[in-house]
Amino acid sequence: MIYFDHAASSWPKPDAVIEKIASFLKENGANPGRGNHVMAREAANEISKTRQLLAELFHISNPNAISFYMNTTQALNQAIKGLLKKGDHVITSQLEHNSVRRPLEYLKRTEEIEITYLESSIDGTTSLDILKKSIKKNTKLIVISHASNVLGTLQPLYEIGKIAAEKNIFFLVDAAQTAGRYPIDVTEMNINLLAFPGHKALLGPQGVGGLYIQPNILLDPLVHGGTGSHSEDIDQPLSSPNRYESGTLNTVGIIGLGAGVEYIKKIGIDVLRKKEWELTNYLLSEMKKIDQITYFGPNENIERVPLVTFLVDDIDSVEIAAILDQHYQIAVRTGFHCSPLAHQVIKTEHTGAIRVSLGHTNTIEEVNYLITSLKEIIKHMG
Amino acid sequence: MIYFDHAASSWPKPDAVIEKIASFLKENGANPGRGNHVMAREAANEISKTRQLLAELFHISNPNAISFYMNTTQALNQAIKGLLKKGDHVITSQLEHNSVRRPLEYLKRTEEIEITYLESSIDGTTSLDILKKSIKKNTKLIVISHASNVLGTLQPLYEIGKIAAEKNIFFLVDAAQTAGRYPIDVTEMNINLLAFPGHKALLGPQGVGGLYIQPNILLDPLVHGGTGSHSEDIDQPLSSPNRYESGTLNTVGIIGLGAGVEYIKKIGIDVLRKKEWELTNYLLSEMKKIDQITYFGPNENIERVPLVTFLVDDIDSVEIAAILDQHYQIAVRTGFHCSPLAHQVIKTEHTGAIRVSLGHTNTIEEVNYLITSLKEIIKHMG
Repeated sequence: MIYFDHAASSWPKPDAVIEKIASFLKENGANPGRGNHVMAREAANEISKTRQLLAELFHISNPNAISFYMNTTQALNQAIKGLLKKGDHVITSQLEHNSVRRPLEYLKRTEEIEITYLESSIDGTTSLDILKKSIKKNTKLIVISHASNVLGTLQPLYEIGKIAAEKNIFFLVDAAQTAGRYPIDVTEMNINLLAFPGHKALLGPQGVGGLYIQPNILLDPLVHGGTGSHSEDIDQPLSSPNRYESGTLNTVGIIGLGAGVEYIKKIGIDVLRKKEWELTNYLLSEMKKIDQITYFGPNENIERVPLVTFLVDDIDSVEIAAILDQHYQIAVRTGFHCSPLAHQVIKTEHTGAIRVSLGHTNTIEEVNYLITSLKEIIKHMG
Repeated sequence: MIYFDHAASSWPKPDAVIEKIASFLKENGANPGRGNHVMAREAANEISKTRQLLAELFHISNPNAISFYMNTTQALNQAIKGLLKKGDHVITSQLEHNSVRRPLEYLKRTEEIEITYLESSIDGTTSLDILKKSIKKNTKLIVISHASNVLGTLQPLYEIGKIAAEKNIFFLVDAAQTAGRYPIDVTEMNINLLAFPGHKALLGPQGVGGLYIQPNILLDPLVHGGTGSHSEDIDQPLSSPNRYESGTLNTVGIIGLGAGVEYIKKIGIDVLRKKEWELTNYLLSEMKKIDQITYFGPNENIERVPLVTFLVDDIDSVEIAAILDQHYQIAVRTGFHCSPLAHQVIKTEHTGAIRVSLGHTNTIEEVNYLITSLKEIIKHMG
């Protein structure tokens, strides 16, 4: 199988990730923070190590400002539902994933928050001028994904963060497609809240997402329960991460994520990204040569995250993906990718589209094989 | 290390669990339900298999009525916060974990729900008569843990379920200490909602908890986001499990849990429990012979989950646990075990207590070594 679905989850994982997970499961199954014996302490230390690795990666000064969840969606729910109160206004974009849109729409129904969806140009660019003009007296939050999972377009975090900071508005970034791939500096970018997945470019297993919460922010916890400390209080403790991490963590997943981050640091985030971008740009250049293919997002030579969403004239996307899967053993994704408004931008809201998403483990031969396969399909069906 | 902290997390896991996790991580990293290529389908099939195994175990007719979370705490939060509305009354017990108490107290503060904490006798028994008398017109929910994580006492689920059903009250069971250990039949026991951990007696890895939601119940989702289906809707889909499972699941953890359940079924749940109970009863009988030890919960020969909470006259629990850990390499747990009201029942709310919790992998030699070690500590320090 040739795997072009990295934007959903990266694969294969580095050997070190698998080995770390298997050996931890074998040698230590204790519950960190739920006992003070040597095994529980070891488990807690390993989790602290992952927190520290992530803190370094995102330029977070206090690793305890990072809390772990099951996935980015839970982290985004914690940020959004924990921050916004009745009557608040939030600015977001048309390109957001349902993990942002649905919590916001839920709060609109239940807490009467106001939502502004910034319009996006067809290549996925969001206008900073329109952003500025959308700010109101009750604007409490700007929430933007660093890169669209449909168009691949990178958003100008520095500039948005500067506008947010000037206006004293909280800035939440969904780094689902960029954490572990693009440099993110929460201080320089004025990011107050950063949600990220463990299982995409950070190369950990599925089952872990994280949320950085700037230490001066106290969110209403999404989940209440045992925190292994202050057991006698009826409310959650005030300190992070305990306040936000009720119940048993995905210890082994977090430890595996640590091994993923170590791998990225060893090879170099820039080295990995460069390889992905070169492959992606090559794919764009080859697709451009095929008349029947329309791809979306930025043009060739404009850097984007390594994914290309496209349509083929007169052939249904679902059918193409099925043939790629069954006949060519190529895994891509079709449909709406949980981002319905992004499909309005590119006018594929009724058809969906095919998404090819790459990782640093893909090769130029694999990209060539995809292109050849697409040409064959077009020849036979077009 | 001799591991007596199974009530926090079971260890060691069956080899099959570790092998399944390692081989899945190696061979398939796709995101189930987020694509229709062969790898995504395989991942989805494996998750369905775990759902099916759990459904058989708990006598659930539709496996899709089980949703996966990061842990039991999240599952309980989903059940409690998703069901209770302003002004509802809920009956629970003094023996509940903070994963029940804190969400309830949160709703008391924010939604003005009323809470009745049923008093418990010192051995952990809850009176059915008092339960019946506590029912009010606005009683919407009874939430009870199948067995206390401090006292080990088993609660009469059949009888409580019958009372709940007669009065049309929802019945939520926290099976943190019993799932995979005691037979649970949601139909016969009239259980509407069942929360359970994957990493305790079910022998899976940490990072997975589950919630059974009776199909006629529609909860307000705790988490909103992408569900891989109905992407265009601004609200969550109505059907289970999609409604409750937003974002990427802990695929590999769920698959590992499936291997744990298969192991339990192969050996036999009764065989495993019998071994645990015999060890526990032996521990009780040996502890009874030591004058300086006071243990809590049911008397010897009355079946309980395999844990014993105790105090030693004149010696601080934390100190004993530290000596057991450092000098004898025995892992036990001290403190309040996230159940502060249970400690009020046994009057250890200021001291905490030591908890020894066993699994089927423990041996009689290990129990004897613990007893010998405790005697030595008492001799030298008492």
